[in-house]
Amino acid sequence: MSSPSNIGILALELYIPTTYISQSDLEHYDKESKGKYTIGLGQTEMSCIGDREDINSISATVLLQLLEKHNICPSQIGRIEIGTETIQDKSKSTKTYLMSYLQNSYNIEGVTSYNACYGGVQALFNTVAWMESSSWDGKLGIVIASDIAVYEKGPARPTGGVGAIGILIGPNAPLVLDSLRTSYMEHAYDFYKPIPSSEYPVVDGHFSVNCYLKAVSQCFEDLKRKTGAMTLDALGDYWCFHAPYHKMTIKAFFQIASDDLSSRLPHFDAKDKQSWGIVNEYLKPLWNEKCEKATRLGKRVGNIYCGSLFMSLKSLLAFEDIEEVCEN
Amino acid sequence: MSSPSNIGILALELYIPTTYISQSDLEHYDKESKGKYTIGLGQTEMSCIGDREDINSISATVLLQLLEKHNICPSQIGRIEIGTETIQDKSKSTKTYLMSYLQNSYNIEGVTSYNACYGGVQALFNTVAWMESSSWDGKLGIVIASDIAVYEKGPARPTGGVGAIGILIGPNAPLVLDSLRTSYMEHAYDFYKPIPSSEYPVVDGHFSVNCYLKAVSQCFEDLKRKTGAMTLDALGDYWCFHAPYHKMTIKAFFQIASDDLSSRLPHFDAKDKQSWGIVNEYLKPLWNEKCEKATRLGKRVGNIYCGSLFMSLKSLLAFEDIEEVCEN
Repeated sequence: MSSPSNIGILALELYIPTTYISQSDLEHYDKESKGKYTIGLGQTEMSCIGDREDINSISATVLLQLLEKHNICPSQIGRIEIGTETIQDKSKSTKTYLMSYLQNSYNIEGVTSYNACYGGVQALFNTVAWMESSSWDGKLGIVIASDIAVYEKGPARPTGGVGAIGILIGPNAPLVLDSLRTSYMEHAYDFYKPIPSSEYPVVDGHFSVNCYLKAVSQCFEDLKRKTGAMTLDALGDYWCFHAPYHKMTIKAFFQIASDDLSSRLPHFDAKDKQSWGIVNEYLKPLWNEKCEKATRLGKRVGNIYCGSLFMSLKSLLAFEDIEEVCEN
Repeated sequence: MSSPSNIGILALELYIPTTYISQSDLEHYDKESKGKYTIGLGQTEMSCIGDREDINSISATVLLQLLEKHNICPSQIGRIEIGTETIQDKSKSTKTYLMSYLQNSYNIEGVTSYNACYGGVQALFNTVAWMESSSWDGKLGIVIASDIAVYEKGPARPTGGVGAIGILIGPNAPLVLDSLRTSYMEHAYDFYKPIPSSEYPVVDGHFSVNCYLKAVSQCFEDLKRKTGAMTLDALGDYWCFHAPYHKMTIKAFFQIASDDLSSRLPHFDAKDKQSWGIVNEYLKPLWNEKCEKATRLGKRVGNIYCGSLFMSLKSLLAFEDIEEVCEN
């Protein structure tokens, strides 16, 4: 098999249920102060699933969307990998379930990748590596990142959401994946589901926020070092973040922006509001240029865990001039 | 990063608890006929876990065995992937938990791979592909395949077992992974855990046996086609099977042997006992030469799901002349 080049994203399909809750209605229903969810979390709506869909069906929906919209036969697919942390039962993989939609095609690798919201990203990395490997069979890869985020009554509930993303991976792609990357993984009891009979996670938002900001900060630091970029501005044309809720995205942006300014302006103090006032002129255009468009879908859908980062990419492609994104 | 060559298995560590049940004692306890488990399933003992270990701890055990026995620092590791279908809670990945043993090493990719007993094999394939990919960071990879197989009272119970395998992957390995392979995946309700509060799977052995034999048969057929091997005998020096129980391994061997004989001897009839008698002379040495040594550990430990195939490899290496295996 000859080595493929320019491996990346050929197509990106999104599925969100048509039902949703207005966050301002939810504030009212929960008897919370006006603006707690809409301004405090930055969310405007939240997608909701009914009882006739589950993680298997929404994953199948994006798989079939990819096959039908892009005229792909099952026999052209050599690998399907699902990133999810939503479990229909405690053993059967969503990947096996999806095989029932691929009649007569049995030689399809890939499993369900399972690691908090990171499963979808690892599924993407694995699929691209498979295509670069000596075992590639010349076929296309599909990555599905899907989750149903349900929280029990309380502070985490308004950040729930549901969505599935299907990504078609192949050579000569308009969106090529760069081989340069860095990761940060740490053990924390920020989010887990220790009660087997309950769908609800135990969430400690404090740990989640800290762990995520530490990861974002360290990864940008590593990327600056690896690329030799002297300023944050020089590092990429657009930035897509995982978006558990909109304000978290802003926090992540401010974290790396303040890291960047601290490293260049010795008197910059991230805790001093006046310092922020002075540099606001620098930060606002940077946010608008690199981040804002990628956050629009997430504000309306909520956290979809594994698919969240890819929904940000979908949002960027939907609201930015697509040709410009692909050329950059 | 220069391209690595001869990527494969540098080390293979096995962990099995010291506690076990004798299968003949279990026959007696279950008031079953003598030989039902020992002859019918071909199992002699079954490893048992206590209440002070779980999937995270046994996975950590083999991780630490690999690091300590082979003098590996966490900073030398670039990827850890766990193949398992044993869930401690419904969200937290065993991979994240293992990060707590790798102080100051945060840039470690890999997640938990989840797909019935196949998760460990996919974890191995993903890790080798990562090492062959343009994103490889020059570090070593670790694959852990571990499971605790518990069944409720009834026919499946004596095939349970527990075990964890840790595999160190790197270049210039004594056991190099060939890039030639083929897969068979099909959706079947043979094994699933639809009751969230229960550890026990629902098992339909009939579906499992059929699906597995179909897969083994199709994969050998594909491999014969891909390699141009005219007879089964020409296809590999040793064969390691997934081993839910010893008799299943024998069934798999007989399936491919009878496929092979049917394709070469037009009058061979797999259902005719006399035909088998005639070719027994051909089959018995083939089994002894290629399969038997790989099945010895599994007979004593039971089914360990994701690690089962790798325990067969460990068994082969333990009972066959290791240098001969590595040279072949």
